[in-house]
Amino acid sequence: MTEAPYALYYWPSIPGRGEWVRLTFHLGGIAYADVARDEGAQAIMPFLKGERPGARPFAPPFVVRGEEVLWQTANICDVLARRHGLVSGTDAPRADQLLMTVMDLAAEAHDTHHPIATGLYFEDQQEAAEEAATAFRQERIPKFLDFFESHLEAGGGTLLGHELSHADVGLWHAHQGLLHAFPIAMASMVDRWPRIRALDEAVRAHEALAAYLASDERMPFNSDGIFRHYPALDAEVTSTGTS
Amino acid sequence: MTEAPYALYYWPSIPGRGEWVRLTFHLGGIAYADVARDEGAQAIMPFLKGERPGARPFAPPFVVRGEEVLWQTANICDVLARRHGLVSGTDAPRADQLLMTVMDLAAEAHDTHHPIATGLYFEDQQEAAEEAATAFRQERIPKFLDFFESHLEAGGGTLLGHELSHADVGLWHAHQGLLHAFPIAMASMVDRWPRIRALDEAVRAHEALAAYLASDERMPFNSDGIFRHYPALDAEVTSTGTS
Repeated sequence: MTEAPYALYYWPSIPGRGEWVRLTFHLGGIAYADVARDEGAQAIMPFLKGERPGARPFAPPFVVRGEEVLWQTANICDVLARRHGLVSGTDAPRADQLLMTVMDLAAEAHDTHHPIATGLYFEDQQEAAEEAATAFRQERIPKFLDFFESHLEAGGGTLLGHELSHADVGLWHAHQGLLHAFPIAMASMVDRWPRIRALDEAVRAHEALAAYLASDERMPFNSDGIFRHYPALDAEVTSTGTS
Repeated sequence: MTEAPYALYYWPSIPGRGEWVRLTFHLGGIAYADVARDEGAQAIMPFLKGERPGARPFAPPFVVRGEEVLWQTANICDVLARRHGLVSGTDAPRADQLLMTVMDLAAEAHDTHHPIATGLYFEDQQEAAEEAATAFRQERIPKFLDFFESHLEAGGGTLLGHELSHADVGLWHAHQGLLHAFPIAMASMVDRWPRIRALDEAVRAHEALAAYLASDERMPFNSDGIFRHYPALDAEVTSTGTS
C-alpha cells in the first residue's frame, strides 16, 4: 500500500462521492490505496484540520500524492483523466463539464432526503423531503437524464464520441444510484433513456471495470450515502416538467 | 460585439453564477460579449434546446466561441484562466478545487431560501428556509470561511500564494454576497476572517476590476439571485458549529 502513488481518502462506510474517484482509477488502470477503508475514518481527520503538508482539502474525497492534495470529486477525476490519458487536452473541458453536471444531479438526489440540513436526521425533515423528492422525480430527473441522453445520442453512444470516458462511467454510476433510490419512479420512465441504459453493458464489458465491480471493493449502495431508498420519497412519475 | 471572441450567455436580470465568469473575463482583460444582456433572455433558449452547433449546455452561464461551448461556472473560469495565463498549469487544479468550493458555498447560500425546490416560491417554503438558514449561518458559513481564511493565511494573502487569481476574485464575490444576504450574521462574526476582508482592498486595487466594478456593467445583488436578503433568514450568530 505504501507503494501506491495515489492515496484516496473517503468515508469508509458509504460509496458516496468517493465512488466516482474509484471508478476513474479503475477505468484508467491507475494504482491507488484506499486509505480510510484500510485504516479507518480517523486517517482523514489530520488532513481536514490542515495538519498535513500540502493544501488542506475541504472535504472527502481527496487524493494525496506527495505534497499534491486534490479534492472536489470532478476536479480529482479531471486531473487523473488528463494525466493518465483517459481524455485528450481538447476533450478534457467537455468531459469535466459533463461530469460536474453528473455531480450536480448527485447533489440534488442527496438533497431530496436532506433538504434542510445534512446535520439533521431524515425523520426531522421528512415533510420537506417528500416535497423535494416529488419535484426531483417529476422535473429534475427528466431534465438531467434527457440532457445526458441527447449527449449520448450526439456522441453515438458515449458522451465524448470516443471510447468510454470517466464522464460516461460517472453518468452510469449516477444512473445506478437513481435506480437504487427511486425504483418506482425510474421503472415508470424505463423506456425514456435507452442510451443511458445501454451504458450498463459498455461498463460491464470493460475488463478492468468488470473486475472491480465483481470484487468486494465495490461497495453496494446503502442507507447512509447519497442515493438512499426511502419508500416515502419514491412514486410513479405520470407527468414530467420537461418534454 | 460580433468581433468578440467569447460570447457569454446568462440570465440578464440577476448577477447569479454569470458574475463569476464576468469577473474572470475582467481579471484577465479578456474581451467578451454579454449576449443575453444585449439581446434578452430569449438568446439563451436555442442553446439549451440543442439547436446550436457544438455541445448543448445544461444551464447558463455558458460561453460560446465558434463550436466550443463551455458551461459549469468553475469549468468556464478554469478554461479561461489556463488559456489566458491567469494561472499556471501546475496551479490550475488548486485554483479549480478552490473555486469549486466557492461555488458549493454559493449553492448552499441559494438553497437557504429555496431548500425544497427552485420552482416553488420562497413564501411556500419559508418554514423550511428558516431552519436551513439557521444551520447555514451557524455551521456552514463558519466552516467555509474558516477554510478559505486558512488558505489565504498559507498563501500570504492570496489563495495560490501568487498574485490575485480567479479563485481569489471568486471568493471575494461570494463574500460580498454573504454580506448582502446575511448582514446581521456577518456583522456578528466580523473579526473572524481578516484575510477574506482584506481581499476587498486587493480587488479594488486591480485596475481592470476596479473599472468594471465602477461601471454600469456590474450588476448589484438583488432579490432574485443566489444571494438574497430575507430578514427572516438573517440573525446574529452567537455560537458556531466549528472552532
